[in-house]
Amino acid sequence: MTDIRTAALKTPVDVAEYLFTRLHQIGVRSVHGVPGDYNLVALDYLDKAGLKWVGNVNELNAGYAADGYARVKGISAIMTTFGVGELSAINAIAGAYSEHVPVVHIVGTPSTLSQKDGMLLHHTLGNGNFNVFSDMNKEISCSMAKLEDAIEAAPLIDHTLQQCWIQSRPVYITLPTDMVQKKVEGERLKTPIDLRYPDNDPAKEDYVVEVVLKYLLAARNPIILVDACAIRHKVLEEVHDLIAKTGLPVFVTPMGKGAVNETHPTYGGVYAGDGSQPEVKEFVEASDLILTIGAIKSDFNTAGFSYKTSQLNTIDFHSTHVTVRYSEYPGVSMRGVLRKVIQQVDMSKLSAVPGPKMKNKVKENEDNSETITQAWFWPRAGEFLKENDIIVTETGTSNFGIWETKFPKGVTALSQVLWGSIGYSVGACQGAALAARDAGLKHRTILFVGDGSLQLTAQEISTMVRLNLKPIIFVICNEGFTIERFIHGMDAVYNDIAPWQFKELPRVFGAPEGKVKTYQVKTKAQVHQLLEDKQFSAAEVLQFVELYIPKKDAPRALKLTAEASAKTNAKQ
Amino acid sequence: MTDIRTAALKTPVDVAEYLFTRLHQIGVRSVHGVPGDYNLVALDYLDKAGLKWVGNVNELNAGYAADGYARVKGISAIMTTFGVGELSAINAIAGAYSEHVPVVHIVGTPSTLSQKDGMLLHHTLGNGNFNVFSDMNKEISCSMAKLEDAIEAAPLIDHTLQQCWIQSRPVYITLPTDMVQKKVEGERLKTPIDLRYPDNDPAKEDYVVEVVLKYLLAARNPIILVDACAIRHKVLEEVHDLIAKTGLPVFVTPMGKGAVNETHPTYGGVYAGDGSQPEVKEFVEASDLILTIGAIKSDFNTAGFSYKTSQLNTIDFHSTHVTVRYSEYPGVSMRGVLRKVIQQVDMSKLSAVPGPKMKNKVKENEDNSETITQAWFWPRAGEFLKENDIIVTETGTSNFGIWETKFPKGVTALSQVLWGSIGYSVGACQGAALAARDAGLKHRTILFVGDGSLQLTAQEISTMVRLNLKPIIFVICNEGFTIERFIHGMDAVYNDIAPWQFKELPRVFGAPEGKVKTYQVKTKAQVHQLLEDKQFSAAEVLQFVELYIPKKDAPRALKLTAEASAKTNAKQ
Ligand SMILES: Cc1ncc(C[n+]2csc(CCOP(=O)(O)OP(=O)(O)O)c2C)c(N)n1
Ligand SMILES: Cc1ncc(C[n+]2csc(CCOP(=O)(O)OP(=O)(O)O)c2C)c(N)n1
Ligand SMILES: [Mg+2]
Ligand SMILES: [Mg+2]
Repeated sequence: MTDIRTAALKTPVDVAEYLFTRLHQIGVRSVHGVPGDYNLVALDYLDKAGLKWVGNVNELNAGYAADGYARVKGISAIMTTFGVGELSAINAIAGAYSEHVPVVHIVGTPSTLSQKDGMLLHHTLGNGNFNVFSDMNKEISCSMAKLEDAIEAAPLIDHTLQQCWIQSRPVYITLPTDMVQKKVEGERLKTPIDLRYPDNDPAKEDYVVEVVLKYLLAARNPIILVDACAIRHKVLEEVHDLIAKTGLPVFVTPMGKGAVNETHPTYGGVYAGDGSQPEVKEFVEASDLILTIGAIKSDFNTAGFSYKTSQLNTIDFHSTHVTVRYSEYPGVSMRGVLRKVIQQVDMSKLSAVPGPKMKNKVKENEDNSETITQAWFWPRAGEFLKENDIIVTETGTSNFGIWETKFPKGVTALSQVLWGSIGYSVGACQGAALAARDAGLKHRTILFVGDGSLQLTAQEISTMVRLNLKPIIFVICNEGFTIERFIHGMDAVYNDIAPWQFKELPRVFGAPEGKVKTYQVKTKAQVHQLLEDKQFSAAEVLQFVELYIPKKDAPRALKLTAEASAKTNAKQ
Repeated sequence: MTDIRTAALKTPVDVAEYLFTRLHQIGVRSVHGVPGDYNLVALDYLDKAGLKWVGNVNELNAGYAADGYARVKGISAIMTTFGVGELSAINAIAGAYSEHVPVVHIVGTPSTLSQKDGMLLHHTLGNGNFNVFSDMNKEISCSMAKLEDAIEAAPLIDHTLQQCWIQSRPVYITLPTDMVQKKVEGERLKTPIDLRYPDNDPAKEDYVVEVVLKYLLAARNPIILVDACAIRHKVLEEVHDLIAKTGLPVFVTPMGKGAVNETHPTYGGVYAGDGSQPEVKEFVEASDLILTIGAIKSDFNTAGFSYKTSQLNTIDFHSTHVTVRYSEYPGVSMRGVLRKVIQQVDMSKLSAVPGPKMKNKVKENEDNSETITQAWFWPRAGEFLKENDIIVTETGTSNFGIWETKFPKGVTALSQVLWGSIGYSVGACQGAALAARDAGLKHRTILFVGDGSLQLTAQEISTMVRLNLKPIIFVICNEGFTIERFIHGMDAVYNDIAPWQFKELPRVFGAPEGKVKTYQVKTKAQVHQLLEDKQFSAAEVLQFVELYIPKKDAPRALKLTAEASAKTNAKQ
């Protein structure tokens, strides 16, 4: 039964096919999510578009996984069902918004007819209001598309996916059951969605470049500080070129870990105010010009707002504007500016004073005991890492410990330093490992997660097993919420957790004999032994390590940040 | 440092103490939730108010558990942390709103000072907007209190808790870190919050009573149909008295299961349109006056809108209005009306025609095979149940199977027929079992959950173990999403799940030797044997049963409802 409008289409394709084909074109290969009766029919279209269905264990985990996938593959998609499914994922979507991650959230909704009739359907509030859940997404999506009309569907999809990519933030798309099979013009699919970032106004851009160069060449000891949005807004090529060309000392913030090649001769380590290594703190704070790229100066990213730098000595490059000292240049994106600065900087006039060098301080953190300490472990882990590893860390001791880990070249680091939702890292690990495989990469994915955080989303290990992914999972077993103990309640029972048999999890979650290896390490010697084991390092099956560290041990930077947080909370 | 305002207080108490004392007064004994640095200091006040901290494994589970607790104990509380915590729980809160469950959601937020300064804190969107998450709660809370000022805090708390109880829906309270220790007038605590339901306008009420009685006495074969809101809006006493006094045949809807004493001589079974047993369908649909009490005529509660009854033969009693045939009486609550109808009905003029009687049809559903079938199992389970059991069922085969289970007296049944979020039942089971214990009751809590649903929230078993709760958990092992198969995709891989070692879960989640018993039953004989085992029945430790039922077997009512759902979804 072809209606008149459909007959007018040159190459009619169903809305679901159109949407999924577009996802494939922009780089998605696997779609995360959980089925529900409002999205089942749509799921039948994945295959045809060359997409695989992940089938996560729950929607929050699916959201975290989609976030992890996007950070590795550039973009990702999650499909949930109306109400129950989408709300279960909403914390993950808010996290992706907060942390600038491009996730396409597609929600299968009741048919447009049921909605118009205000039917009393399952997964509704029982009051006929079908907009409540989409309204909740308004402030955590950079663009929304309610596909309620076949005529608009295709351009709406294109626009929304474009915004997701360019703004690097989640978008929200509803697909009502009766729209799945409506026909749209398939000819459009021959023209890819335009994912080019809009150019800056050339005159404005040139002006900003001139100002930047003026201050840069006038500075005695300028440095580069790379932060999260350099990664998320995809200017790492510019960043690498800037470092290579200028030879300036370069540092990263905690959220910027992984943005630069840490084996580069001018790499100096992590700067986070008082949380930095002393030589880093001294050098950065003595600089008379800090070029920050993609900064997010949040509490946990600055060790409790402890920067001792002045805006007068700072140029901030952002995706939406550039700030030179106190002058803001709105609408000028860093991408074009950085490129021109690289091209135009007169090296004969640039002063590049050599800074500190970072190394993994293993020996320096040895002590007389066999106990594994936070101070010792993180540099030691650094020596285990290989080029191109994908490292996922969790809010808790691992997010702070990793500051002391020097990465090999090409490492991608995932964490949620701003949003900080625990359990995130487990889902993200699944998504990241899958993204690497989907991209044809052999990179290892290595997760460091706290025993407390793991409990929130543990069952996502089951998805890793089912998909035959082979991450190395380190669970820091320290009897509960150590980070919280340092903020408040050092011995409070609310910071304790149930004692799980952690290393049994993969097997219980379906790993057959031979498909998983588990380990328990309690001494420095055992850590050495494990990390030097070639087979372990080769990561040919999923590996799960219980790593015992004392309950009241925390990385230096965590202690500082926790103290600052407690003070901010208490301020009257 | 006592300020002037504090000096003026007769009995100064801290805001957190005030709030928790009020919770205790209205019946809360345990508070669900997960710690976070924005609520840690507040948690220190629980003890003093006589409240215990549950410490759930994640916030969604905590929300489900709070919902379960409220359904057993009358009201409940959950405490989460700003952003990450509250959004993780929001699906559970929306569910409580949809299903009329009084849950107090308290969110620990950044201090009012940090909010005013728009600080770039963890758990924010990074844009200085601290209202996004509370705004998301507006449509799923019947009342909200942002505690931002000590002068208003106490009355605001009182009003909000009162609304929670009276409207039987969630309320949302923010407690900024700097408000926790602000002083309020403790004298107020001597006067309990007024939880009485507002009386109807007597003239209006009398008018409605007269109309109801007129139709009731004129009817030839009137019946009573009890639904969810009779339970949630706490009119079960009226319902029981109405049944006892009138002797009318009484039926329940699926959501009304547990509302009436199913061993009462006039109890006839579940009415849900075409999903009913034939004799029930016939009798109900032939009635010339149906008194529905607390109806929610949703798709899954009516087997896909398959009622064959007429509004012309119906009187609907609701918490906010009464509808007699086509006449609506807004603002007249069922409570007072039912009480007067009971008092005034002239029994000599009432016609009560005996209806069908329900029984557990075990023999009738036997077949030649040893395979456990859905048709056979649910009546068989009915014979295992005891007075006052708390039965929790999940969206999936169990929510429909339970229609065929006749309950003993005093059973409380929990499920989410309207909201239908899978995984709910596991959290709810924890909350319900704890509520029973907190109320000093020895009732058993029995959970029937699908293998698919359990995977979403499995780790809440860990909380049951830690709290030493002793539910009996039946997991229906049928290789995935059977309910979804019947809606769409009978053999689709997206309806499959990972093969878990289900019965290992309690041990892995921390149950020590002797604190858990696990079972695997695959034949009818094994079911008989287990259900007749006195020790099993005594439920003295947590018990976990894998119950194998074929993948493509579903209760009769589910098949009908699934088919109707698929049609509604596809309608063009
Ligand atoms: C969803 C969510 N709930 C609660 C919190 C509050 N929180 C932050 S860190 C933390 C404890 C983490 O404990 P663990 O993973 O064991 O880390 P470690 O012991 O290594 O510090 C908690 C409860 C949060 N950030 N996110
Ligand atoms: C949070 C959430 N996600 C997805 C769904 C869609 N859904 C409804 S029932 C169901 C399958 C349940 O499977 P199972 O628990 O195994 O039940 P059974 O096999 O007994 O039908 C799914 C995925 C939902 N209702 N809620
Ligand atoms: Mg820990
Ligand atoms: Mg199942």
